[in-house]
Amino acid sequence: MPRFNPLVETLTAPPIPSVFAWGDAYDGRSGPMIDFSQAVPGYPPHPDMLRLLGEYAASRAYTGYGPIEGEDSLRTAYAAHVSESYGTSLSAGNIHVTAGCNQAFICAAMAVAGAGDAVLMTDPYYFNQETTLAMLGIQTRFAACDPAKGFLPDVATLAAGITPDVRAVALVSPNNPTGAVYPPELLAAIYDLCAARGVWLILDETYRDFLPAGAGRPHDLFGRAGWENTLISLYSFSKSFCIPGHRLGAITAGTAVVEQVAKIMDNLQICPPRSAQAAVATALPLLADWREENRREIARRVEGLLSTMAAVPAWRVGAVGAYFAFIGHPFGKTPSAIVAERLAKEAGVLCLPGSYFGAGQDGYLRFAFANADVATIALLKDRLNRFVLG
Amino acid sequence: MPRFNPLVETLTAPPIPSVFAWGDAYDGRSGPMIDFSQAVPGYPPHPDMLRLLGEYAASRAYTGYGPIEGEDSLRTAYAAHVSESYGTSLSAGNIHVTAGCNQAFICAAMAVAGAGDAVLMTDPYYFNQETTLAMLGIQTRFAACDPAKGFLPDVATLAAGITPDVRAVALVSPNNPTGAVYPPELLAAIYDLCAARGVWLILDETYRDFLPAGAGRPHDLFGRAGWENTLISLYSFSKSFCIPGHRLGAITAGTAVVEQVAKIMDNLQICPPRSAQAAVATALPLLADWREENRREIARRVEGLLSTMAAVPAWRVGAVGAYFAFIGHPFGKTPSAIVAERLAKEAGVLCLPGSYFGAGQDGYLRFAFANADVATIALLKDRLNRFVLG
Repeated sequence: MPRFNPLVETLTAPPIPSVFAWGDAYDGRSGPMIDFSQAVPGYPPHPDMLRLLGEYAASRAYTGYGPIEGEDSLRTAYAAHVSESYGTSLSAGNIHVTAGCNQAFICAAMAVAGAGDAVLMTDPYYFNQETTLAMLGIQTRFAACDPAKGFLPDVATLAAGITPDVRAVALVSPNNPTGAVYPPELLAAIYDLCAARGVWLILDETYRDFLPAGAGRPHDLFGRAGWENTLISLYSFSKSFCIPGHRLGAITAGTAVVEQVAKIMDNLQICPPRSAQAAVATALPLLADWREENRREIARRVEGLLSTMAAVPAWRVGAVGAYFAFIGHPFGKTPSAIVAERLAKEAGVLCLPGSYFGAGQDGYLRFAFANADVATIALLKDRLNRFVLG
Repeated sequence: MPRFNPLVETLTAPPIPSVFAWGDAYDGRSGPMIDFSQAVPGYPPHPDMLRLLGEYAASRAYTGYGPIEGEDSLRTAYAAHVSESYGTSLSAGNIHVTAGCNQAFICAAMAVAGAGDAVLMTDPYYFNQETTLAMLGIQTRFAACDPAKGFLPDVATLAAGITPDVRAVALVSPNNPTGAVYPPELLAAIYDLCAARGVWLILDETYRDFLPAGAGRPHDLFGRAGWENTLISLYSFSKSFCIPGHRLGAITAGTAVVEQVAKIMDNLQICPPRSAQAAVATALPLLADWREENRREIARRVEGLLSTMAAVPAWRVGAVGAYFAFIGHPFGKTPSAIVAERLAKEAGVLCLPGSYFGAGQDGYLRFAFANADVATIALLKDRLNRFVLG
């Protein structure tokens, strides 16, 4: 057999399917499986969302090729939504629709970096961002986030990590895997650092709709003069509308970035799937109240997780917010993959090992707790307190 | 502004939108616009296709994440379809679903080549394949196709083009842009060459459902022992089901290739859009007769084009087949982009310049004639005979 691309061949297999296999091997001995594995909402899409998806998919109007950058209707509706959310004024030309936020990330990364360049990430990091860069031959540098500071990145550490080959700093807030919500003033300081050093700031805001009530705007960076020369913001419609299977995300950036991304997207898939775009364009204003109620529900789950974990003294909450908690396990040097596998097979708690998010994260597990309601989250107390590594 | 990736920044803008602009500038002086620009079927999807798309899109069953490699139902149905079409026996494990055939190509290319490697293509080539490789830093080598031989590739020319850095030969049959249908024995010879030289054969068969009646199987390569170690076949559901806006394609390859592609696809978009996959899985057997009737209709359009062009003596048919004809214009050294722009704005015939498909193709235009019915194709006679470059 001819050789494969070594950058792809040496990638580890996608982690989620292997974690599902642990869940499949659980015999139910501790009660129903608690699935904290993947970041998917534990409640269904709104009936109007399903109705709109069906109506537009059945329409001949969306069977042909569409604009590379996305449907005008969705770009316009989403630009209005972003403008309202951030108190700014963006237009459709600032939006490039993608098939999910992983695609938004690879488009942003390719637009600014190629093989031999480098991107600075946090440690822990979202694993798909690391593997995306690795398979493109883009080097990765890491700025460690201090657990004692709630896994928030440190500006001086980031500054030291911007070596001459670094083209971009890639951040996720609210964070995956830790759940840490980066305060606006921290994001402002990192933005200033990037602008001063002439590197892009790629900010994945997939989980921003699940900030606590009264948290205010995620940041004020879209209000900065010349923000287009530094900031590339990423988003996913999957979480807020409970439709990851329809694959829709978006890039918000300057028109010059959108122009570069369009060239990449034309090669990647010509245009994003069309009918779902039209459905979400209609749903964005229509389902605003429903999304707000979901935000409150996720906030209740955060509170539920915190009160439950307070009754599990051996385990520590490293950080929590939006969809995720990064939980310190009490088994010392035992690798997190061993802990997670045993936890799935014996306690019926399915989660991801910290080691999937960085070599130094073996003391932690990622709980995607947004998947489960408050009553289910409360079951953790007995499951974790009774769990022993024999 | 920080720099962009020079491999992306130096790409030309996607060509189709600029060609559409020529069409928009046409004032109708010569009659209704004849649109030969993009490879889209000129007839609507079957009503059952739209019904299925709507039903599955409205179902909660497809709102969550799905398998990276594609829905089991579609992989199974398509494996059966390929097995029947090629008289072979493939399984779902040989199939990786993608969001269209451009995505199938980039996945295949990335699986076997990285920056600094090379891929050997024909000249003329399908432009998105060339730009895909360029933006990844993969070098391109070209084997010129002789117009006197109907633009079929020459095995000796390909053999000479396989330099030590070449990881794959990329072919399209039926060809885009020329329409040339590569005979099974030619494909067999090129397969033997690739196997002997230890390089992959990436074969884009997007248009294979539109071979002439009685043409037999496109090739017998899936019947070769060890085909999995050489062949990667690409396909698109867009043309056969008239649903490019839903973005669905597929890779047929050995399981080792599918495993590599899954790692890439996880980073590109986690999974292909799901509900359309379920719809096509049902439609594949259901609409077999309808697809056969469309094949006959496209064959009638080929005949219509040939008889029309026989009455346009100054223009030459370089090659024709499936969706495309590569047409030699009579304007000597005038660049094909000038001819195509004037042809659109003055004669109301929208097509693509040959130069978009290779630096040496300025004597030609690509007519994606499948877009138009036989009566419309017949209008070419007067439009072309009367057209002058003043």
